Amino acid sequence: VSPRELPRTQVRRLPEKQVEDRAALDALLDQALVGHLAVVTDGWPYVVPVGMARDGDRVLCHGSTGARLFRGLAAGEPTCLTVTIVDGLVLARSQFESSMNYRSAMILGRCTELEFRAKAAALAVLTEHLMPGRGADSRGPSKKELAQTSVLELPIEEWSLKVSAHADPDDQDEDLDLPYWAGVLPLHHVWGEPRPSSDLRGGPPVPDYVATWPTGRT
Amino acid sequence: VSPRELPRTQVRRLPEKQVEDRAALDALLDQALVGHLAVVTDGWPYVVPVGMARDGDRVLCHGSTGARLFRGLAAGEPTCLTVTIVDGLVLARSQFESSMNYRSAMILGRCTELEFRAKAAALAVLTEHLMPGRGADSRGPSKKELAQTSVLELPIEEWSLKVSAHADPDDQDEDLDLPYWAGVLPLHHVWGEPRPSSDLRGGPPVPDYVATWPTGRT
Repeated sequence: VSPRELPRTQVRRLPEKQVEDRAALDALLDQALVGHLAVVTDGWPYVVPVGMARDGDRVLCHGSTGARLFRGLAAGEPTCLTVTIVDGLVLARSQFESSMNYRSAMILGRCTELEFRAKAAALAVLTEHLMPGRGADSRGPSKKELAQTSVLELPIEEWSLKVSAHADPDDQDEDLDLPYWAGVLPLHHVWGEPRPSSDLRGGPPVPDYVATWPTGRT
Repeated sequence: VSPRELPRTQVRRLPEKQVEDRAALDALLDQALVGHLAVVTDGWPYVVPVGMARDGDRVLCHGSTGARLFRGLAAGEPTCLTVTIVDGLVLARSQFESSMNYRSAMILGRCTELEFRAKAAALAVLTEHLMPGRGADSRGPSKKELAQTSVLELPIEEWSLKVSAHADPDDQDEDLDLPYWAGVLPLHHVWGEPRPSSDLRGGPPVPDYVATWPTGRT
């Protein structure tokens, strides 16, 4: 990586959208179910979706030991994890000022593959992140299952966060009298009705913790 | 790029999830508002979210001529566009079999930057994709605005699609008697109530086409 005048996580385009607040980064990572993780193979970038969870100053990414692209990541190849949630459309009178409300984080670094106890502990964190309360209401991994599962850890050190959160479109003054509707159309990510498995035996009811799972996941 | 025994878009991990149906790819691309586009700079991969629209056998990606990473993409550097929609959580009795329902497409190729008329036409497609009906109810770009906007075209030639659509969790037989609830928790992506801009003049009502915008966008 060549030296740069600016840190490579400096947002140069629309810098007013850059947010330096670590709490805002954590809130995004904690809401997201998946991120997009990149790896370079033979000079070509590949981007794969991964189930993920923040745990303090690291992000845990779930994969399989059999996945080709995961092997490069496990070997510590340079990577970028990008996590994006779209919060709505911003409909300005001009198409040029129309945009989206979104939050997007980029974390640069190299992954470490976790082993044995660290991996088991990380899987417990992933389980609780994806579905809080589920850890105690499911069977944990056997040794064989653990061996078939790969968990990558990416440190939260070099990161950037862009947030676009328009309450109103930002039309130019000369466009305000145009006869077009303008406003914001929010996008919500919400759980639907739980669908019990058709082979459920003994008929345990939908657990209470389902009702308290955070909404707004994506 | 070195020769490979298998095409590089061959899904090797969980190949039963690979879908060869082009119509399924198009349906995913047509539902998605954003994709994640990668570019390699100084050997490091960067992944950026982009507003996107499918137009026949190409994907159009919207950006800014001022964006650093977009310049490499505009120059035809190798790229990967990954588009993912999470459809729900699959809660198996075992954590090992727990997973997500999702659809994820990966398109490999090189972008071309559009110019002049082709760019204006592509922006009209993007506008209609993001908000059908909006093209006729907004002001199109001026020459100056057009010059400040970058639209990249990525051909849909080398692609893969993975779909995980469990109706039920896929627990192992020996786990079926465990006393844990199991099932699928759907995730929906839905529009909220439109919020008219606070500086809306003349009070045009929320247009009819808002009510008919496709739900399930993300």
